[in-house]
Amino acid sequence: MSSIDFFQEKGNVRIELGVRSYPIEISTENFALPSTYATLPAAAHAVIVTNITVAPLYADRLQRVLAGKYGQIHQVVLPDGEEHKTWQTLNLIFDALLENGCDRKTVLFALGGGVVGDMTGFAAATYMRGVPFVQVPTTLLAQVDSSVGGKTAINHPLGKNMIGAFYQPLLVVCDLATLDTLPARELSAGLAEVIKYGPIADMEFFAWLESSMDALRSRDRRALAHAVRRSCEIKAWVVGQDEMESGLRAILNFGHTFGHAIEAGMGYGAWLHGEAVAAGMVMAAELSRRLGLVDDPFAHRLKMLIQRAGLPVVAPVLDAQDNAGRYLSLMRVDKKSEAGEIRFVVIDGPGKAIVRPAPDALVREVIDACCV
Amino acid sequence: MSSIDFFQEKGNVRIELGVRSYPIEISTENFALPSTYATLPAAAHAVIVTNITVAPLYADRLQRVLAGKYGQIHQVVLPDGEEHKTWQTLNLIFDALLENGCDRKTVLFALGGGVVGDMTGFAAATYMRGVPFVQVPTTLLAQVDSSVGGKTAINHPLGKNMIGAFYQPLLVVCDLATLDTLPARELSAGLAEVIKYGPIADMEFFAWLESSMDALRSRDRRALAHAVRRSCEIKAWVVGQDEMESGLRAILNFGHTFGHAIEAGMGYGAWLHGEAVAAGMVMAAELSRRLGLVDDPFAHRLKMLIQRAGLPVVAPVLDAQDNAGRYLSLMRVDKKSEAGEIRFVVIDGPGKAIVRPAPDALVREVIDACCV
Repeated sequence: MSSIDFFQEKGNVRIELGVRSYPIEISTENFALPSTYATLPAAAHAVIVTNITVAPLYADRLQRVLAGKYGQIHQVVLPDGEEHKTWQTLNLIFDALLENGCDRKTVLFALGGGVVGDMTGFAAATYMRGVPFVQVPTTLLAQVDSSVGGKTAINHPLGKNMIGAFYQPLLVVCDLATLDTLPARELSAGLAEVIKYGPIADMEFFAWLESSMDALRSRDRRALAHAVRRSCEIKAWVVGQDEMESGLRAILNFGHTFGHAIEAGMGYGAWLHGEAVAAGMVMAAELSRRLGLVDDPFAHRLKMLIQRAGLPVVAPVLDAQDNAGRYLSLMRVDKKSEAGEIRFVVIDGPGKAIVRPAPDALVREVIDACCV
Repeated sequence: MSSIDFFQEKGNVRIELGVRSYPIEISTENFALPSTYATLPAAAHAVIVTNITVAPLYADRLQRVLAGKYGQIHQVVLPDGEEHKTWQTLNLIFDALLENGCDRKTVLFALGGGVVGDMTGFAAATYMRGVPFVQVPTTLLAQVDSSVGGKTAINHPLGKNMIGAFYQPLLVVCDLATLDTLPARELSAGLAEVIKYGPIADMEFFAWLESSMDALRSRDRRALAHAVRRSCEIKAWVVGQDEMESGLRAILNFGHTFGHAIEAGMGYGAWLHGEAVAAGMVMAAELSRRLGLVDDPFAHRLKMLIQRAGLPVVAPVLDAQDNAGRYLSLMRVDKKSEAGEIRFVVIDGPGKAIVRPAPDALVREVIDACCV
């Protein structure tokens, strides 16, 4: 991973994708500065898509700062929660766009967490076959992962993120001050995706997280800045090489194969996405260990850090009769599956991830060992 | 238009879009030949999406010819008609894909007309963020226009094709023999899109259509072959220069601004798309004439050819109180509109189209003159 062995405390992180390149601006109080949006194209309409939790905190401030740039600014306020990441909710965005006469140059702003970002991005990808959009993530999870890289989607009752598009924003604005209003549970959920970058790409970062976990949970601004920036750098490095997930990019799904099964099996919204990924990483590390790819101390070390982040390290039982069978059937609809064979992101020695299948019997042992 | 001044009766037409280039195979009985599909990627699953009208005619034959290539082949049979080009119908495709465990390498085949092609293409664009697909158009309209160029979409109650994506197929298979089963009304509807290519790009082709209209309507195979091939050549030439419709491609929407208003105003499915485009072209030609861009004989000549194709040359009244107002309000949500200003495709001298706004008062005169 020599090409990402750099770190800078200042300046933007860039996603390099040719004509679709864009900056991730990481700072404090930058979301309320007009200069943050100076390079965006002008248009007759802008639409701020947010949710009922975030709207009262930040929507009017964003609208004021954009007022000089767009003739009309509309707000679309969605319900909050993963269980609303559906076509019905997405349609609220399309209805507002059409009712307000929004044209093909309209700029959409996703103001909120991962659900708002994924839905706004998918709306932007498909409204009139594509309009520009900007990510303004207000959760740690969205700042370090979901707002970066252009994955947009909604859920289908039979599987998470099954309907979507690769569609890049023009700009990502990470304002660290917005994390001050984040509930502790959501902060922890975001830390799951931060921790992920260690085992798959950067064990130095992992060691830094071990020494900084208390500072992160007490929202030390400097520690959060480093965590967000380093996470975005690693994600930018991966996405820049494999935008459409034909290979490498799948490593960013470490913990997600098991995690998506937990989310779908428990019912969307019961566990936060980051919580499901946390337990999923414990399971994926255990699978890696049983495959002989990492040793017991490594798996233990990862589990301890996840626990210290305030996250679950034990997975839920999804079916009292045949729990492993239920997990396996939910995982077979994972997007990485091919011809019915589940492909897992496993750790091939600390700091490196690979994607491979595993025998069902071994996966059942992992599930039995990790669930209560 | 010197670069499209060629014509070849044999071989494929190609859409040149770099890595997204693909052939349009125009022949007879080619859809039932295994060799037609030889270059497609293998996969565990293929899904034939069709409708209740086309399924009994061709679905099993297509399934048989694909049987050697795919482990499992599923059929999804949709209701027939523009009024079903909705999210609800699209979801039938997603349900079938997920219920059958279709993975990210699954190949979708759109077997039918424009509605089937647009919906299957949009499903392919968004299922698991994109799977490969093939167009097998069985209507003249789909063969000469909608299956070529990667525009996919569904309708929204407030506007036609408002939700969609640019997403190219791997291959388009135009089998002229499938036109034998096409109802006469649908054949005429397809001729509207064929006629369109004359005034916007090729008056020699227009003259050929004038001399060949009887042969086309009696389904002379050689005449149809020429009409399909020349239409695809012109479309390929336009799309190859402007895939995402940032400029030139909009000329392919000649007659469609008025036409979409007719479709939405009458209720989707009341008029066939080609019929609405036919009356829309008469209106757009009349607007061009009143703008001083073409003369009266040209507008008359176009109208006569449209009439000889068995198509409407008089537009419907959409509102007894304020017909022009109703047309204008429907047209303002057209995707070419910017900041509430409708932009029309008009003929700037025979064989050349441009996109421009027009004064509301003049557009009202055109509507009043063209509606009964």
